[in-house]
Amino acid sequence: MDITVIGGTGEEGFGLTLRLGKAGQHVIIGSRSAEKGATVAADAVERLGGQGTIEGTTNEEAADRGDVIFVTVPFAGQADIYRAIKDHVAAGKIVVDCTSPLATAVGGRAWQVVRPWHGSAVEQAKALLVPGVKMVAAFHTISGEQLQDLDRPMDSDVFVCGTDKEAKATVGELIDLIPNLRWVDAGDLTQARIAETMTALLISVNRNYKIHDAGFRVTGRESWGRPGA
Amino acid sequence: MDITVIGGTGEEGFGLTLRLGKAGQHVIIGSRSAEKGATVAADAVERLGGQGTIEGTTNEEAADRGDVIFVTVPFAGQADIYRAIKDHVAAGKIVVDCTSPLATAVGGRAWQVVRPWHGSAVEQAKALLVPGVKMVAAFHTISGEQLQDLDRPMDSDVFVCGTDKEAKATVGELIDLIPNLRWVDAGDLTQARIAETMTALLISVNRNYKIHDAGFRVTGRESWGRPGA
Repeated sequence: MDITVIGGTGEEGFGLTLRLGKAGQHVIIGSRSAEKGATVAADAVERLGGQGTIEGTTNEEAADRGDVIFVTVPFAGQADIYRAIKDHVAAGKIVVDCTSPLATAVGGRAWQVVRPWHGSAVEQAKALLVPGVKMVAAFHTISGEQLQDLDRPMDSDVFVCGTDKEAKATVGELIDLIPNLRWVDAGDLTQARIAETMTALLISVNRNYKIHDAGFRVTGRESWGRPGA
Repeated sequence: MDITVIGGTGEEGFGLTLRLGKAGQHVIIGSRSAEKGATVAADAVERLGGQGTIEGTTNEEAADRGDVIFVTVPFAGQADIYRAIKDHVAAGKIVVDCTSPLATAVGGRAWQVVRPWHGSAVEQAKALLVPGVKMVAAFHTISGEQLQDLDRPMDSDVFVCGTDKEAKATVGELIDLIPNLRWVDAGDLTQARIAETMTALLISVNRNYKIHDAGFRVTGRESWGRPGA
């Protein structure tokens, strides 16, 4: 399985690339510039001590080649990125949107959000792609800084939203490759209207306590993952 | 300090009454009917094995007498309750709103929310009271069922939102009386726009996994409570 990370040159995307690369996955970093993508991919391989097959290229080529496409970009540029990759994301592919609609996109504060017209950033993304793409929303509350710190075990849970249960399970299997990271099925795609905003609450908590990586663990079960499994 | 629980006859309010009563606090349950309030208060005292000083009366009298007034009512009736108690909540008092604007208020689903005009249920409540009342939002993600199960330690964290830091700390001290319950300062009152909706996400998780009391623990620090303390 080929994994693409659009925005793999940013904090969250680079962290995700490192963690998936370390787990032995083939990762293709997408960037606006093929050269920057390749440079960051080389950096990732170096960070992994030469392990991992990580490549970098343009967003379009990365989208073309990925079976599962993570999109980790700021909300301000999200729609443009999706328009750019639209013709490269075929029906049936899995797209994992990680965008939180923070108010920073319009000059506001990172602990505040704006409300996308479609209800959530992932639903806006879905509306920009061809029908039949399997949209999943995840990773909004996972610190990019913590993902990049490979020596440190993760200590929070990933909320996964999506209407296609098999797509959620596929993404869940990738999450399970990252030590100590768990995934919780938070419901259908529209639940991202809530999950996406929880990033801003964590940023508010970080701000109050002068810390960097508050996260959520979900209580009520010993383990999560696929419901009914 | 006198604590009032408006809606203390409901699941969440009754659970809160039991936990605070067990901790030795004097609790006044408010109900639309003084008689029902008194009956439920007697029930609470019985559940505590005769311990605790718990009374029941009308919402109005309970509001008059409380120094800290918890309001634990469904969103559909929230505005009416606040209009009813308005003249009984003097400036300077602390009101802790626990309302989540679940879509059930308008015939929708419990895992969906509506957006109150003021941004959040607690901000709507504030707009209905006299100026100078210290509004705090809390307890949205704490299961009423779990609160009522006195033999079971709590396993989730309370997100506390409010603009008055001293009021948040006072509410925090009450939360600290409940074994294993922690409070996290989530920011100013407007952060309740996020915290209130997280109830619906938990209900979605409960629904997916066929459980009753999913909750959140916040990671990133060993302990929370008052920031800077």
